[in-house]
Amino acid sequence: MTGQEAVFGILTISDRASRGEYQDESGPAILAFFEEGVISPWRYYMEVVSDEKPIIEKSIINMVDELGCHVVVTTGGTGPAERDVTPEATEAVCERILPGFGEQMRQISLQHVPTAILSRQIGGTRGQSLIFNLPGRPKAIRETIDEIWKAVPYCVELMNGPIIEMNKQVCNAFRPKK
Amino acid sequence: MTGQEAVFGILTISDRASRGEYQDESGPAILAFFEEGVISPWRYYMEVVSDEKPIIEKSIINMVDELGCHVVVTTGGTGPAERDVTPEATEAVCERILPGFGEQMRQISLQHVPTAILSRQIGGTRGQSLIFNLPGRPKAIRETIDEIWKAVPYCVELMNGPIIEMNKQVCNAFRPKK
Amino acid sequence: MTGQEAVFGILTISDRASRGEYQDESGPAILAFFEEGVISPWRYYMEVVSDEKPIIEKSIINMVDELGCHVVVTTGGTGPAERDVTPEATEAVCERILPGFGEQMRQISLQHVPTAILSRQIGGTRGQSLIFNLPGRPKAIRETIDEIWKAVPYCVELMNGPIIEMNKQVCNAFRPKK
Repeated sequence: MTGQEAVFGILTISDRASRGEYQDESGPAILAFFEEGVISPWRYYMEVVSDEKPIIEKSIINMVDELGCHVVVTTGGTGPAERDVTPEATEAVCERILPGFGEQMRQISLQHVPTAILSRQIGGTRGQSLIFNLPGRPKAIRETIDEIWKAVPYCVELMNGPIIEMNKQVCNAFRPKK
Repeated sequence: MTGQEAVFGILTISDRASRGEYQDESGPAILAFFEEGVISPWRYYMEVVSDEKPIIEKSIINMVDELGCHVVVTTGGTGPAERDVTPEATEAVCERILPGFGEQMRQISLQHVPTAILSRQIGGTRGQSLIFNLPGRPKAIRETIDEIWKAVPYCVELMNGPIIEMNKQVCNAFRPKK
Repeated sequence: MTGQEAVFGILTISDRASRGEYQDESGPAILAFFEEGVISPWRYYMEVVSDEKPIIEKSIINMVDELGCHVVVTTGGTGPAERDVTPEATEAVCERILPGFGEQMRQISLQHVPTAILSRQIGGTRGQSLIFNLPGRPKAIRETIDEIWKAVPYCVELMNGPIIEMNKQVCNAFRPKK
């Protein structure tokens, strides 16, 4: 659907940022990617929540079902520590898992740090929306989203969403020829 | 079991091909691989079905349980679109998932297109049969099966199936030394 | 917790070794890695069991819950043959799966043999312990653990375990800067 505005959800998951103990820099790093990269019409919603599974689930569901987000991107909470529950919450609200997202994100991060295998990041779909988990650190966010996003516009189209046009210098999105 | 004939199932999953709206080229691409590559005795069954989970399940079960296929290879229906249900159907009829199949198939396709991460292809076993999902396009099928199949003859042997001998120019199957 | 002794569990899963039909060489290969690589205080438990899911589960649970192992490493039983049930047993006793472990272990082994995709190896956590499956052959064990272990000391720390210091010549463990 050319001309339809794309809606993005940005969800930072962090106990400390949600209590205001520090300024969230991860959500803004994702927003910066959209600002630099997306050249077709878009708008966004942004939220910071604590590492509580029911709260994360509620926030994703709200972004998808109520606010109409075509893509929801999370940051934080994907490690093996006890408070890390982002993948569990994401899996709970997704109807389908796209295992290639987690696999490729770990592959990308493994080029930078061997501890990338500890990340449990996943991606999946709920209705006609795509949801995926990014790492927590702004540097790792950009290493990952700039690469992964090449597949996102085509994925959104396959789910009957809007045409997302990218600045090729930032992210060269790919669409197979029909 | 040397000398036993290998039986292959080829299952094309496509609404349009099953309605006769176009000629299936994907099943024949898989068949061409067997014709070029397999030099020990084999025979095959081939079917084209629509993107309906119960129909796909029934077809795989029939190929494995009734027709005695040692390997069933599917093509089509592995993306994120609503009608894509091949991985769900495959998972439902498999007793065990072999995650390495999906992982490596996506890795191979990622060398060609970044949208490879959207594929939900899986592999698994039902009884003593191996089942796995190939991409839909003939070019992508050959990029994938020519590589993946290197592990298949040994897998079939581990499940007490026939010895499958390959033409090394087409596919250099590997068997670890005992 | 600096100074706290790390406890490792080594579990060989093999019908034939458990019956004494041959000498287990796989458990000792894992032990050799610890002896060469770990320079902070540690001790270990070692067991050889048959390829029976309930027995494997019981052994892992005992190592984690009773003996206080921070890491349990298994060897054997991860292939597609009927008696291979190590991944099923591991998954049953883990509370969380860390998919990066299986993915990276298969990637490493794929550099050596194309049949690596047949391995169903997984990693996960139970309470504050990390559990993962290594291949069965001593050569493949060292190809894998020497690489994978780079992420283990940090993982154990994230789960409030002891500080594990490594000999960098053997395994250059990585810890992200806070």
